[in-house]
Amino acid sequence: MTPEYPTSLGTSDADTITLLGQDLAADLIGKVGFGELTLWMVTQRRPSAPEVRVFESVLVALADHGFTPTAIAARLTYLSAPDSLQGALAAGLLGGGSRFLGVTEDCGQFLAATLAEADPVPVDDAGFDELALAAVRQARAAKKFIPGLGHPVHKVQDPRTPVLIEIATEEGLRGPHLRLFEAIGRVHPQVLGRTLPLNGAGTCGAVLADLGLPLAMLRGFALLARAAGLLGQLAEEQRMPIANDIYMHVDRNAAYVTPKSE
Amino acid sequence: MTPEYPTSLGTSDADTITLLGQDLAADLIGKVGFGELTLWMVTQRRPSAPEVRVFESVLVALADHGFTPTAIAARLTYLSAPDSLQGALAAGLLGGGSRFLGVTEDCGQFLAATLAEADPVPVDDAGFDELALAAVRQARAAKKFIPGLGHPVHKVQDPRTPVLIEIATEEGLRGPHLRLFEAIGRVHPQVLGRTLPLNGAGTCGAVLADLGLPLAMLRGFALLARAAGLLGQLAEEQRMPIANDIYMHVDRNAAYVTPKSE
Amino acid sequence: MTPEYPTSLGTSDADTITLLGQDLAADLIGKVGFGELTLWMVTQRRPSAPEVRVFESVLVALADHGFTPTAIAARLTYLSAPDSLQGALAAGLLGGGSRFLGVTEDCGQFLAATLAEADPVPVDDAGFDELALAAVRQARAAKKFIPGLGHPVHKVQDPRTPVLIEIATEEGLRGPHLRLFEAIGRVHPQVLGRTLPLNGAGTCGAVLADLGLPLAMLRGFALLARAAGLLGQLAEEQRMPIANDIYMHVDRNAAYVTPKSE
Amino acid sequence: MTPEYPTSLGTSDADTITLLGQDLAADLIGKVGFGELTLWMVTQRRPSAPEVRVFESVLVALADHGFTPTAIAARLTYLSAPDSLQGALAAGLLGGGSRFLGVTEDCGQFLAATLAEADPVPVDDAGFDELALAAVRQARAAKKFIPGLGHPVHKVQDPRTPVLIEIATEEGLRGPHLRLFEAIGRVHPQVLGRTLPLNGAGTCGAVLADLGLPLAMLRGFALLARAAGLLGQLAEEQRMPIANDIYMHVDRNAAYVTPKSE
Repeated sequence: MTPEYPTSLGTSDADTITLLGQDLAADLIGKVGFGELTLWMVTQRRPSAPEVRVFESVLVALADHGFTPTAIAARLTYLSAPDSLQGALAAGLLGGGSRFLGVTEDCGQFLAATLAEADPVPVDDAGFDELALAAVRQARAAKKFIPGLGHPVHKVQDPRTPVLIEIATEEGLRGPHLRLFEAIGRVHPQVLGRTLPLNGAGTCGAVLADLGLPLAMLRGFALLARAAGLLGQLAEEQRMPIANDIYMHVDRNAAYVTPKSE
Repeated sequence: MTPEYPTSLGTSDADTITLLGQDLAADLIGKVGFGELTLWMVTQRRPSAPEVRVFESVLVALADHGFTPTAIAARLTYLSAPDSLQGALAAGLLGGGSRFLGVTEDCGQFLAATLAEADPVPVDDAGFDELALAAVRQARAAKKFIPGLGHPVHKVQDPRTPVLIEIATEEGLRGPHLRLFEAIGRVHPQVLGRTLPLNGAGTCGAVLADLGLPLAMLRGFALLARAAGLLGQLAEEQRMPIANDIYMHVDRNAAYVTPKSE
Repeated sequence: MTPEYPTSLGTSDADTITLLGQDLAADLIGKVGFGELTLWMVTQRRPSAPEVRVFESVLVALADHGFTPTAIAARLTYLSAPDSLQGALAAGLLGGGSRFLGVTEDCGQFLAATLAEADPVPVDDAGFDELALAAVRQARAAKKFIPGLGHPVHKVQDPRTPVLIEIATEEGLRGPHLRLFEAIGRVHPQVLGRTLPLNGAGTCGAVLADLGLPLAMLRGFALLARAAGLLGQLAEEQRMPIANDIYMHVDRNAAYVTPKSE
Repeated sequence: MTPEYPTSLGTSDADTITLLGQDLAADLIGKVGFGELTLWMVTQRRPSAPEVRVFESVLVALADHGFTPTAIAARLTYLSAPDSLQGALAAGLLGGGSRFLGVTEDCGQFLAATLAEADPVPVDDAGFDELALAAVRQARAAKKFIPGLGHPVHKVQDPRTPVLIEIATEEGLRGPHLRLFEAIGRVHPQVLGRTLPLNGAGTCGAVLADLGLPLAMLRGFALLARAAGLLGQLAEEQRMPIANDIYMHVDRNAAYVTPKSE
């Protein structure tokens, strides 16, 4: 009994390449954008033009944040193994975990879980405020952070947030996840006693969740955006290298301390 | 003496995020596409609309090839470590080396090296044919393969090749790399004694080289395209898993053989 | 103000390499085994001979499990990118996550957390049985699995478990984590209504925790053991390749299904 | 026709785990060291005690070199994704490429290729000197570096080199690769016009080649040694973190430069 492996993505024979049931050469190349194809591959449903615009806005918002730990790790890996660009890119992506790049997914998951327990889902701002207030109180009681709230640099406002909300609104795709996130922005000061900004990564998570994307893939979109940013970082490293200077700086400022046992 | 680390990519302060000298929120999000931004970050020069269309055509052409070794490796890694999507994506990209994904860069490099030795660069098909003939003869004498020539499945024609040439031509971006590659397609039979197709991955390399992209980054674009394809594969694995069946198939058909020493 | 980066690991000057405060060439090479050095680097305390023997027993127990998803992923990555052995090894290790390789750490963490709440820590089997019973009941009430309990193949007994317990006992290093784990083995049937084996990976976690190793590093030792196993897998792939057959098997048995939207 | 996948490594059934034809629990755990098992898995031949001692000496020599680019990349990745130790370890290993960790394999390959062309292989120092002289002259004529010659820090002598030679000699395993490497150390000044040290990584390559290990796996042993070193680095990062300081240092000393087009 030979197993079968079902797929709706790519297959090919001698003359044709099929992807998502489309003829790759005749129907996709040159006719479908890269962001559009990505959305289509992940959802296996052809996206609308508004969905593509919102999706690409998110990717642009997340593509590069300068000298993050992931960008530095990618550059150092490229310094050490210039024969393997894939290794440098992979090393950069491996930093896409809970602390720096995970907020997008964590926020989407948090909003979706909150909405899943709402009965019914609110229809106006007052309703979202009420739901948000309960969620913030519950998080505080459990001593948990609200994903997407606060930013180490943009302490008052993350400039990406209003722009992303505006684009989602323009395209008719401002849904319950984003509305709940905005409500969290309005109500949290009365629980936490201080005002934090809604950060861009969290807003991206809300927007992606409103696009109906699988929650367990949200981190993946942040990683794709970051992959493009890392290509920018690595091309710049080829042209104007800094990794060796970073290495030298760390190595020369090493301070030996006598080992202490545990 | 504190070192400085120059960059033209992302920086930020409390109120603004700057990327490539642009205000990310005001000038990029929602106004620039993801492919456009990627090109811009890599070249640090704003691309034209024709360049973006050709570039996205290449990314679409390379995004997914079905159950390649890289797709299978990513799915198996996700099976084994579902808590770390970045690890599954990275594992898939690490297969982007010399054999399956490297053709794009190898072909671009080969064409660029051939053109670098041409003096002057040809201006008509006859000139490109002559240059191609010399290059194919030299490769054959050195018992080397021409990167981009031949395909294990598409033995007569890779359906992506004519479409990519057509799009580059439409956009006024069919340059010397692609023309040389086409000439190789015309002349190689008289040297090799058989007719091989110009494959799609090689054509992508020629097209990317004509866009003036850094040759040492060409593999990177194949990796970015594949990153999107891997998100498709991993989303499908979440929805309709096959990795465990593959694992079971291999494990159950293991045949123990007594070790032989070297 | 230049930062300083403290370390007790390696430093060097023109004539000497120092590691852990020792002269690498004079005091370590040829005098200290590889397992011994690993323990020393992680704990920054010179291990005793019994600790080294127990530690190496764990590494041997975890080194290779045949055609696991990680071994297959490493082989497929090597097929695809044979120019980058480090990529194939990294791809294999990236499967070292929650499902297949994480048990060692999860079990150590579970046992340590249970002991941390015990007041006082038991001194005899009756005391450990009581603590184990409470822990198993609590896990069942929370609908959680006990890490280290049960095995898909070794349904009655994992052959590694009694050997590891014996070695820890011989070396005087059978401590509270392992005793609690053994107690879980004795008492769980009265709560769960069926008898599951204590698996080898979980036993390794208990043993490593009794060595006083940092709990957040336990997964790391499983990864190191697996790195050696993956070298075995990749050397065998060079000598007697199977990755291409696996790829061909999956590709040829792909069954195209029409995409369904979410 | 179901394919079969041959292996001589691990297999298991309900009661037994077999590795290399041995009963893992009865014959290997606690009886075979970790280095010994690694050698055995790679060569599929049980190593002798002298081979194990020499092999572990090499692993100890290569385990940690302080704040190398790979160690820094691993620490930054751990900072960014502390939930995925395997990702941090993999990121560190991905720097094990041509520039920093590849010397071991490059040197072994160079020596093996030189010996393969020698007819017959020399039997005394005079013969090795002659062969070395020809090889150094040929490399210089081709404007190639000799792998293993020279070191950025140890400009006169790498302290690991004489110790490794001594251990190989003591154990009766100083073979033609190492003798040729030593000869290169003696004769190169008369060709290059200056005296360079034989570095430790190159010496390791010579020693591993004399152990009869597969040349295409030599980089793998450097990676295994480094995996242990990276566990030390990551354990130290948990205890006494520096990655955030490195990140802050780079980020704060970023100097924005206006993009120049290519």
